Amino acid sequence: MTSLTDMPLNRSEILAMVGELFTEQMPFNKVLGLKVTQYQADVVEVRFAMKKDLLGNPVQNILHGGVTASVLDVVGGLAAIASVTDKFDGASAKTLAEKFGKMGTIDMRVDYLRPGRGNEFVATAAIIRAGNKVAVTRMELHNENGDHIAFGTGTYLVG
Amino acid sequence: MTSLTDMPLNRSEILAMVGELFTEQMPFNKVLGLKVTQYQADVVEVRFAMKKDLLGNPVQNILHGGVTASVLDVVGGLAAIASVTDKFDGASAKTLAEKFGKMGTIDMRVDYLRPGRGNEFVATAAIIRAGNKVAVTRMELHNENGDHIAFGTGTYLVG
Amino acid sequence: MTSLTDMPLNRSEILAMVGELFTEQMPFNKVLGLKVTQYQADVVEVRFAMKKDLLGNPVQNILHGGVTASVLDVVGGLAAIASVTDKFDGASAKTLAEKFGKMGTIDMRVDYLRPGRGNEFVATAAIIRAGNKVAVTRMELHNENGDHIAFGTGTYLVG
Amino acid sequence: MTSLTDMPLNRSEILAMVGELFTEQMPFNKVLGLKVTQYQADVVEVRFAMKKDLLGNPVQNILHGGVTASVLDVVGGLAAIASVTDKFDGASAKTLAEKFGKMGTIDMRVDYLRPGRGNEFVATAAIIRAGNKVAVTRMELHNENGDHIAFGTGTYLVG
Repeated sequence: MTSLTDMPLNRSEILAMVGELFTEQMPFNKVLGLKVTQYQADVVEVRFAMKKDLLGNPVQNILHGGVTASVLDVVGGLAAIASVTDKFDGASAKTLAEKFGKMGTIDMRVDYLRPGRGNEFVATAAIIRAGNKVAVTRMELHNENGDHIAFGTGTYLVG
Repeated sequence: MTSLTDMPLNRSEILAMVGELFTEQMPFNKVLGLKVTQYQADVVEVRFAMKKDLLGNPVQNILHGGVTASVLDVVGGLAAIASVTDKFDGASAKTLAEKFGKMGTIDMRVDYLRPGRGNEFVATAAIIRAGNKVAVTRMELHNENGDHIAFGTGTYLVG
Repeated sequence: MTSLTDMPLNRSEILAMVGELFTEQMPFNKVLGLKVTQYQADVVEVRFAMKKDLLGNPVQNILHGGVTASVLDVVGGLAAIASVTDKFDGASAKTLAEKFGKMGTIDMRVDYLRPGRGNEFVATAAIIRAGNKVAVTRMELHNENGDHIAFGTGTYLVG
Repeated sequence: MTSLTDMPLNRSEILAMVGELFTEQMPFNKVLGLKVTQYQADVVEVRFAMKKDLLGNPVQNILHGGVTASVLDVVGGLAAIASVTDKFDGASAKTLAEKFGKMGTIDMRVDYLRPGRGNEFVATAAIIRAGNKVAVTRMELHNENGDHIAFGTGTYLVG
């Protein structure tokens, strides 16, 4: 009998699986309250709401710089994974889990542009270098007013 | 009557105040469980224990990359602040709060060297460029076995 | 008698002076063959032609990565200087020389996207963080076909 | 008949070949005047002499920041190549040329610590992450007095 994890998945099922994995299975992403609100081959968006736990400066209500870095790493990682999912069309969840287990951030730069004030934050990412082994992404963080809070650049191992 | 926040502080009192501020007053540092275990003019050490909330990969018990980035930013920031505290000798808590409020991370690079496995993690930082306006620091994260998990480089506005 | 270097300059005269300084007075920029082809408050463009001396790989006719880094640093620096020239309106060449002497690159990241092939290259820069002390810029390098060769991010001391 | 480029090379012959390639075959390295003065599996040193062509600031005799970036990229690249040469033991020059043609810098960060003054400069590099696909290196530039001029961090595609 074929187990569920052996069934072939198409690209959009793979992306749905990865989005769910990031939101539901990664404890620190739950602490941050991250929601993957858009996730297709070339559109990635992650949102989260301000809450007390995420503050670095509680007097001025400013997001901790580590939260910004964390979210940029997450959204860049999602884009990097998406950039190679076309190669995985028809793979099983089991195979994919193995592939994804070898992926990871190699390095990341964060540029802090202005204090992280706001009620809701939106992180997006775009691929600037796609490859079989390495993907490079640029990420941005804005608040609900469109204020640009940070830029990121990340290099990810993808194969 | 002179209020407590107007009393002059010497350098070691200032460092004690900053260490306490980072550990006790910054909500996200409490979420991470950070302890400032050493903090003098040129030695900074931050420690934290592994716990489920900090995992990125709960199957393999690996720290979330955002936790690594967060802690490196914190320990680098502490070093950057320490690098200018000699100028603040004799300043009051009120004056210092104002000065520190203008400091912040400009940019940071994180290099992930190996998976973040371990029970306790130790982050350290050293100043590589000291200035009146900008300080640049290099940071490291190790686990309790001395495995080197990540390097960081951070540029901080300090004046 | 007022010397030429004491005469007040307006913003567009300052930019013309800086552009000329970069093109004519900096020996390494002459080695690279850099031309400042556009330089206003918020538009900066530097061009250079391919030549044998700039090759890293002479078999495949690919630009040396150091040439790419050099040009991105130059164009980012020009943008950083432009971002503070409004403060210098009416200053003399002598005063400006002193101000510019204190400016410099703090750190830079270069992302290499594809091999540097082409006959002519165009570097551009935009400010992402403007400040009295520090400016952060993003830079791009394209060839004459619009192929995107590299991205850069630079942090500059400007005051 | 076996051509010269088909003969098997051992590791030290490979390193000698690569060192010679960087010094003699790369035009821009000749412009910079780079000499590979040490090159073994885990020691890499590149030296060059000050000369007018390398100046950014000819009034103060300061190296152009692009020269610094270029040299750091070169010495980091040499270290990255060395980190995978054990896999190539016994390969021919022809095979190696093919392998090396696929290697390259993915991204690099340069931290400028102090003005590049001096008569002779020494660049060194060390591997901080070794892998089959990607190597990460840290680089340093000093002058002949041991003044530390710049740090670098580079990520290289090596397989």
